Amino acid sequence: MSDEPRVEIYTKTQCPYCEKAKDLFDSKGVDYETYNVTGDEELFEEMKERANGRETAPEVFIDDELVGGWDDTHELDQQGELDEKLGIADGGEEVEEHRRLIIAGTGISALSAGIYAARSNNDPLLFEGDEPGGQLTLTTEVENYPGFPEGISGPELINNMKEQAKRFGAEIEHGVVESVDDSQRLFRVELSNGDVYTADAVIAASGASARTLGIPGEDELMGYGVSTCATCDGAFFRGEDMVVVGGGDAAVEEANFLTKFADTVYLVHRRDQLRAEDYWQERLEEKVEAGDIEVLWNTEATEVHGSADEGVDHVSLVRHPEGHPKRKQEEGEDVEEFELDVGAFFVAIGHTPNTGYLEDTGVELDEDGYIVTKGGRGGGQTKTDVEGIFGAGDVVDFHYQQAATASGDGVKAALDADEWLESEVPRAGAEGAEAPETPADD
Amino acid sequence: MSDEPRVEIYTKTQCPYCEKAKDLFDSKGVDYETYNVTGDEELFEEMKERANGRETAPEVFIDDELVGGWDDTHELDQQGELDEKLGIADGGEEVEEHRRLIIAGTGISALSAGIYAARSNNDPLLFEGDEPGGQLTLTTEVENYPGFPEGISGPELINNMKEQAKRFGAEIEHGVVESVDDSQRLFRVELSNGDVYTADAVIAASGASARTLGIPGEDELMGYGVSTCATCDGAFFRGEDMVVVGGGDAAVEEANFLTKFADTVYLVHRRDQLRAEDYWQERLEEKVEAGDIEVLWNTEATEVHGSADEGVDHVSLVRHPEGHPKRKQEEGEDVEEFELDVGAFFVAIGHTPNTGYLEDTGVELDEDGYIVTKGGRGGGQTKTDVEGIFGAGDVVDFHYQQAATASGDGVKAALDADEWLESEVPRAGAEGAEAPETPADD
Repeated sequence: MSDEPRVEIYTKTQCPYCEKAKDLFDSKGVDYETYNVTGDEELFEEMKERANGRETAPEVFIDDELVGGWDDTHELDQQGELDEKLGIADGGEEVEEHRRLIIAGTGISALSAGIYAARSNNDPLLFEGDEPGGQLTLTTEVENYPGFPEGISGPELINNMKEQAKRFGAEIEHGVVESVDDSQRLFRVELSNGDVYTADAVIAASGASARTLGIPGEDELMGYGVSTCATCDGAFFRGEDMVVVGGGDAAVEEANFLTKFADTVYLVHRRDQLRAEDYWQERLEEKVEAGDIEVLWNTEATEVHGSADEGVDHVSLVRHPEGHPKRKQEEGEDVEEFELDVGAFFVAIGHTPNTGYLEDTGVELDEDGYIVTKGGRGGGQTKTDVEGIFGAGDVVDFHYQQAATASGDGVKAALDADEWLESEVPRAGAEGAEAPETPADD
Repeated sequence: MSDEPRVEIYTKTQCPYCEKAKDLFDSKGVDYETYNVTGDEELFEEMKERANGRETAPEVFIDDELVGGWDDTHELDQQGELDEKLGIADGGEEVEEHRRLIIAGTGISALSAGIYAARSNNDPLLFEGDEPGGQLTLTTEVENYPGFPEGISGPELINNMKEQAKRFGAEIEHGVVESVDDSQRLFRVELSNGDVYTADAVIAASGASARTLGIPGEDELMGYGVSTCATCDGAFFRGEDMVVVGGGDAAVEEANFLTKFADTVYLVHRRDQLRAEDYWQERLEEKVEAGDIEVLWNTEATEVHGSADEGVDHVSLVRHPEGHPKRKQEEGEDVEEFELDVGAFFVAIGHTPNTGYLEDTGVELDEDGYIVTKGGRGGGQTKTDVEGIFGAGDVVDFHYQQAATASGDGVKAALDADEWLESEVPRAGAEGAEAPETPADD
């Protein structure tokens, strides 16, 4: 290609979103240069200047023009504008392909489903979604996925499963499922870039995304000191005081991780006890005793202050001895108001299921957006209200949310989908396709 | 110890039950000699002679006296007689210990529960049961457990999980749970050797055991050419024709494995199609085309003929074009009767859940003996009808029965047990133990 644009990516060591940005350009066959700013003060300052003060990686430039971080790059791609900038747009024609099974997602649950679906010859196509590899790619070390006594890094576990799924014939493509049309016999699966696929069956395993607090300053400073990913951005704020908001495993793990970089980590939790597993509570106690972490019980953040130029400067908080101070304040009770000078603000308060694309289907979603599956005993546990659509992983599971449970439920979804496909969708030219199912008595 | 008895074990390469026998003597701190008969015709003949014609491994001898195979050795141990023979009996006194959590089983599901329970500080004690490591120890290669793109051997996966559980503090002991008494607040868990433990909570993850056909000759020739474990015993019948009975993944996998040794493998199935996953059906087709496997559709075995001295000689079978020939024969229909000269007879027709020890409890079992758990969505899916007793893996799951699903459900059981223990059984001296649970709104 002549006139190929110049793509530059500022990266960091141990930066999952940087990998995603690189993967995206790789998938388009576009060359790029990378600059790793880890440990290079000068390069970091250069990046900051070119990126209008933003301190997070990746920062992507095309022909010297700032595209931004992963979110910005990804959004541009989904709107089809990235291909235009790169000179590889195809005029926006619809690409149509039919698949026996489409799986939304490439996290633990989706890949586990992919492994089984490929072995069952259901020709699965997985769409990567907004966060390829899912939440586990943001985890440094997974110690409790059964089978790895020494632990395994999140990205490595995901890559293993990806390799395993591909080995048996699963295909993985870049794309975000925007909507599913279940009004006809073949599901119409539309991606956010306009491409349309049809499928005999769909497994929704598109996981969940980080939730934010919705307080003033949070959105404005996202990428400028506010973050939902400690492993991505922690190292940028070396030597600063930092806040982590939350009370579950993720919050404690992030606080623990950030002590590597932070002067003091303030763990802000609105109640007087944590939901984190004992293992993490003990690691926390050790860090508290060592003076590396301070827990602010019964406390909530109300505003993040700072600027794109200077990053986060300080945080406003409220505290009430009986917990839930913001609710108490709304109800007219007195609460203690105070401020904290910190250089970074990490939000780790859970996730919202990525199920927007199912809203116009007959699939029942609960009030939080989680898919309601059949559950129960025996087969068909992952069935939804729509025949041929199955759900597994964090789009369904609002409770356990472990790698092992997501994997097990992904496998169940693939087996349920296979059983349904075998009985409802005869394979073209398959011998014995018309043989009726006999009762499961042998 | 003076006068230590001489223990001898004839073994084979790739023989899971030989490992179990060795593990048993290891656990008692008793020395033994092993003789590997693989590829040693002379040693094999010596074993056969000393073992009264039995051709399977292991064969265990104490002071020149034949104990027998794993089943015999294990049974002797459970009756306390093995310790007597070894001169290490303790007079049969009751050993009592209290544990916060006892887990019945050491298969995939039990070990996955053990990893999580140990990390939650629930001090889990796992009892190995009749088949330490569970069914996966009998599997040569596991290709579909997510995370191992190149596959992993069953015993290796089990060992990994065992190591992982121990790393976080789980204890594993030899013993078979004989009964659980749920009439008092502390569960009384009695082992088949008479030892009694108490526990605040119990996870039943004791898996399932191989089912047999119940036809004449089967019991009598078990160990003399009849087997439920191809990987254990297949190599003993090199060059012979062999029968495998069954139509699921396990049957096809065993038939496939046995082609290494057999002249021809006859896969006997009572219907005209298999339940095995496509992957295995394709492997089967390849072997059928190559002339290594012949499938006998709509056929059932009615008797195994042979003797302890000479092993299996031939098998009687019946066939009916519409399947289920034995049932048809009972109903008075004509069936084709025929015989097949074979040297080995492998039964791979599924499993029965090991739940006998729960029969006198309030835990609901279905008509096949599977535990009825709550299932459904959200937390508590592994709860049984008895508060504090949870079920996971093949004792519950009569449908999916995969390593990944057993693991995921084991993790769920550990998390359910932890939640129940945290709310119902305050830890001695734990700070905040009296703090009431707040609603799960954060």
